[in-house]
Amino acid sequence: MVSFSVSRRMAGIDPRPLDDMFAYGMDPNVISLACGNPDPELFPAKALAKAAETVLRTDSVQALQYGKTNGAERLVSLIRTRLKEKQGIDCGEDQILVTSGSQQGFSLFAHTFLNEGDTVLAEEPAFIGTLNAFRSAGAKLVGVPLEADGIDLTALERALIAHPQAKCLYTITASNNPTGVTLSDEKRARLYALAKRFDILIAEDDPYGELQFDGRVRRPVKALDTDGRVLYFGSFSKILAPALRVGYVAADASLIRSLSVAKQTADLQTAALPQLTVAAFAAENDLDAHVSALRNRYAEKCGVMRGAIERYFPPEVKATKPAGGLFLWCTLPAGYNSAALIPAALKAGVASWDKDLNRYI
Amino acid sequence: MVSFSVSRRMAGIDPRPLDDMFAYGMDPNVISLACGNPDPELFPAKALAKAAETVLRTDSVQALQYGKTNGAERLVSLIRTRLKEKQGIDCGEDQILVTSGSQQGFSLFAHTFLNEGDTVLAEEPAFIGTLNAFRSAGAKLVGVPLEADGIDLTALERALIAHPQAKCLYTITASNNPTGVTLSDEKRARLYALAKRFDILIAEDDPYGELQFDGRVRRPVKALDTDGRVLYFGSFSKILAPALRVGYVAADASLIRSLSVAKQTADLQTAALPQLTVAAFAAENDLDAHVSALRNRYAEKCGVMRGAIERYFPPEVKATKPAGGLFLWCTLPAGYNSAALIPAALKAGVASWDKDLNRYI
Repeated sequence: MVSFSVSRRMAGIDPRPLDDMFAYGMDPNVISLACGNPDPELFPAKALAKAAETVLRTDSVQALQYGKTNGAERLVSLIRTRLKEKQGIDCGEDQILVTSGSQQGFSLFAHTFLNEGDTVLAEEPAFIGTLNAFRSAGAKLVGVPLEADGIDLTALERALIAHPQAKCLYTITASNNPTGVTLSDEKRARLYALAKRFDILIAEDDPYGELQFDGRVRRPVKALDTDGRVLYFGSFSKILAPALRVGYVAADASLIRSLSVAKQTADLQTAALPQLTVAAFAAENDLDAHVSALRNRYAEKCGVMRGAIERYFPPEVKATKPAGGLFLWCTLPAGYNSAALIPAALKAGVASWDKDLNRYI
Repeated sequence: MVSFSVSRRMAGIDPRPLDDMFAYGMDPNVISLACGNPDPELFPAKALAKAAETVLRTDSVQALQYGKTNGAERLVSLIRTRLKEKQGIDCGEDQILVTSGSQQGFSLFAHTFLNEGDTVLAEEPAFIGTLNAFRSAGAKLVGVPLEADGIDLTALERALIAHPQAKCLYTITASNNPTGVTLSDEKRARLYALAKRFDILIAEDDPYGELQFDGRVRRPVKALDTDGRVLYFGSFSKILAPALRVGYVAADASLIRSLSVAKQTADLQTAALPQLTVAAFAAENDLDAHVSALRNRYAEKCGVMRGAIERYFPPEVKATKPAGGLFLWCTLPAGYNSAALIPAALKAGVASWDKDLNRYI
């Protein structure tokens, strides 16, 4: 058999942690606390079936023929309206690129703006899938620790001074995966000012922005962006369904233009049926009411989890108090090895995650 | 406004030819002869609507929740069965990767196996979208001319000698886009022997293999592959509908494993609704009968076009005699400038394509 070596940029990626995460997530014998899988009981399957049927009945050519690389008009229009109403982000049509999930947005961003060896600052820990997207373009990751109210800005400033060539910062501003930490309003403004001072881009990942338990959508850093240095990555994965693979990037038109070239080379366009099904679902149903029901259910689940931690965990174990989203993070007392806990938990049928799996090397 | 430069690998890509191609393809006032858009009258929209409804009614969690990176089981099984029956390609489950159209397959292939500056041989002309996928990984393209029965093997051998570091050959073995040329059976065997002798990979693009007008599927080079050096790129774009974005790569398990890592970083998985809709369509309908109807219609259209060329074009203009697919290629007599013809044709409402647009620079 012939054997061909993989490229330098791909050679360093270890797919096993994410493979395992998804495998346990699909295993009915395992309760997985590691994945960002939404609760399948809350998928609006019937309404989505009706929406897909509407699309294929009334607009089959658009659903089936090659279309615009940047996204179907109806979906782009829905995204713009929601960004303005919910997040306070005002975007023209040329400032949106629809992607196959926000994972693809990050992959396109990395391939478009980073050369091999470029430095990316990233809050630590953060979603391993995105970190691997940066790695796949040959980028080097430098971690910046999180605090209870989001990224440590003093540490970020130190990192920016130590890495003056860094091109961007990756941050999940609301309900970070895997810790559940949300960046405070006050820190959002200071983060933007720092990015401006050091002239870097901010890649703002916000799949959980609308899933804050108090129902208030925190203004994204993108809403403060006056000079076009923030790229906002949004998604319907957590508020509708992940396997539809419908996400988007909202950014300055010139950045979107460059990302669009990468999108054209990557897959020509996002599948039209899911795009139009999302738009038809929003036209035929009350998406806000659906998101509100999700928010309440996840708040309830988070409460149950925190109650169980208080009741069953030794008091030395510290847990985050998530303001929203799907994640919660426990820290063992100094001297304890959390990596040793994972196989033990797995034997008991519970999959979890360890900071070492997201380590930035 | 901030301005950030794009990466070296993306800087050389000119998206305008393909942008224009798709824009004219969508313009109702233009007859586009440039795109590979299937005839929308032949989309089985009603049957696809029923298939999508079946999927969301009976299997909503698989259609909506995160799933396997390599593809939904039912679709992988359909692909394996068809590859064996139609193309004579015998593949295990671990030798298939479902992609968002075969465009994504080529993008993943390029990013996985090519470093910046690596040489790719490609038949010339060939589909510009794929060429741009190679460019997006920083590859350098070296063109090898086509003859009436496919790639010029003497020229290929010369190119392999001149570029001993070349890693792979890109070829569209049946009904090349944009010329319509099909590689003869005899040349397929010789092509494989050459690839073996020079130890290169073959990236075999075959969206039109089942659309040969005589109804005979030519055995792909992949069917001759005894040492795992051929990657076969298939697609449902031309035999079902392109905006479903369902394609696949069939290759040796170790190559698929590497491509799967790239797929995970690129978009986690292909949208599940289109994948399962294709599988349900094939279960509920006679896909072979559908493909046969397409084949007859395209044969008829090709006959009309060749008749018009014979009747209206000066005899000095030579046209290819396509054995199948969607394309036909005219060559003007020496001394005529075909690039000058394109704007004139566009004024008359006809979009076409010029070899210079696919030039390998």
